[in-house]
Amino acid sequence: MRVLGVDPGLTRCGVGVVEGSIGRPLTMVDVGVVRTGTDLPIEQRLLEIARGLDAWIEATAPDAIAVERVFSQTNVRTVMGTAQVSGLALVAAASRGIPVAMHTPSEVKAAVTGSGRADKAQVGAMVTRLLRLTEAPKPADAADALALAICHLWRGAATNRIQAAVAARATGAGR
Amino acid sequence: MRVLGVDPGLTRCGVGVVEGSIGRPLTMVDVGVVRTGTDLPIEQRLLEIARGLDAWIEATAPDAIAVERVFSQTNVRTVMGTAQVSGLALVAAASRGIPVAMHTPSEVKAAVTGSGRADKAQVGAMVTRLLRLTEAPKPADAADALALAICHLWRGAATNRIQAAVAARATGAGR
Repeated sequence: MRVLGVDPGLTRCGVGVVEGSIGRPLTMVDVGVVRTGTDLPIEQRLLEIARGLDAWIEATAPDAIAVERVFSQTNVRTVMGTAQVSGLALVAAASRGIPVAMHTPSEVKAAVTGSGRADKAQVGAMVTRLLRLTEAPKPADAADALALAICHLWRGAATNRIQAAVAARATGAGR
Repeated sequence: MRVLGVDPGLTRCGVGVVEGSIGRPLTMVDVGVVRTGTDLPIEQRLLEIARGLDAWIEATAPDAIAVERVFSQTNVRTVMGTAQVSGLALVAAASRGIPVAMHTPSEVKAAVTGSGRADKAQVGAMVTRLLRLTEAPKPADAADALALAICHLWRGAATNRIQAAVAARATGAGR
């Protein structure tokens, strides 16, 4: 199972690809950031990010895509651009028939550190440890994208097992 | 000059195409709404809207696209979807090299009614009058999209004349 995590942002959109399955070590496939200049008009920035995400999907062929869920409670000035970028990631996935899910920042933090209130440094340290890297991926947006992918692999697996159990029970196979 | 106005929304995305130039009557080319079901997952809804907007652009070949500027001050529960749809409209324009601009709701209201605080009924009535229609376009999202296109035609023309005057002065042609 290979997951592309997307930490949406207009100036820096973090992208990280992780491979793994329950009970096996995780492997980082690739990590990076799609950047756009603040001097460009908004439509050019969004287009560059859309094309950047397309290129990442083509290059890494993920089985699933995980996007950070945007909350309007955060900085009002940046939340619009973040929401727009998350929409582009959702469409990039849907247009290829790749399953896509959203996870909140606290779900991601809880998945990789055990605490939904962990700070950036803690998330970076755990991503480094879980993926057996020599140093924390920089910038933080890149580390966050990897954390999102890990969160999806683990939560997705848990959700799948619950759904399988429910399905098995419904069909009588679990009795 | 033919302008496609887009009133972004996840459930109803208004689209309206108006043709015109300063000093000549405006003509409605087409108007409609791209709808998506609330029962669909968000990524499918966004994909359907992206494809709907593509179809409108292909069918009507606008010279410019005008998108309503989304404010985070409005309903927090719907603003994320609205922002995502506006991002899709911006990318649809930029990917084809079609100039795109955003106008605020009060700029649009002021352009068609003379007051930035006009209500929906007033905007609908003026759109009907300016485009010489027999009745107000329904739903309000469709009328708003036409109002956006009209606003862009008129504001764009004013902006262009100012820019032309500034450019002429800078090169000495205006002296």
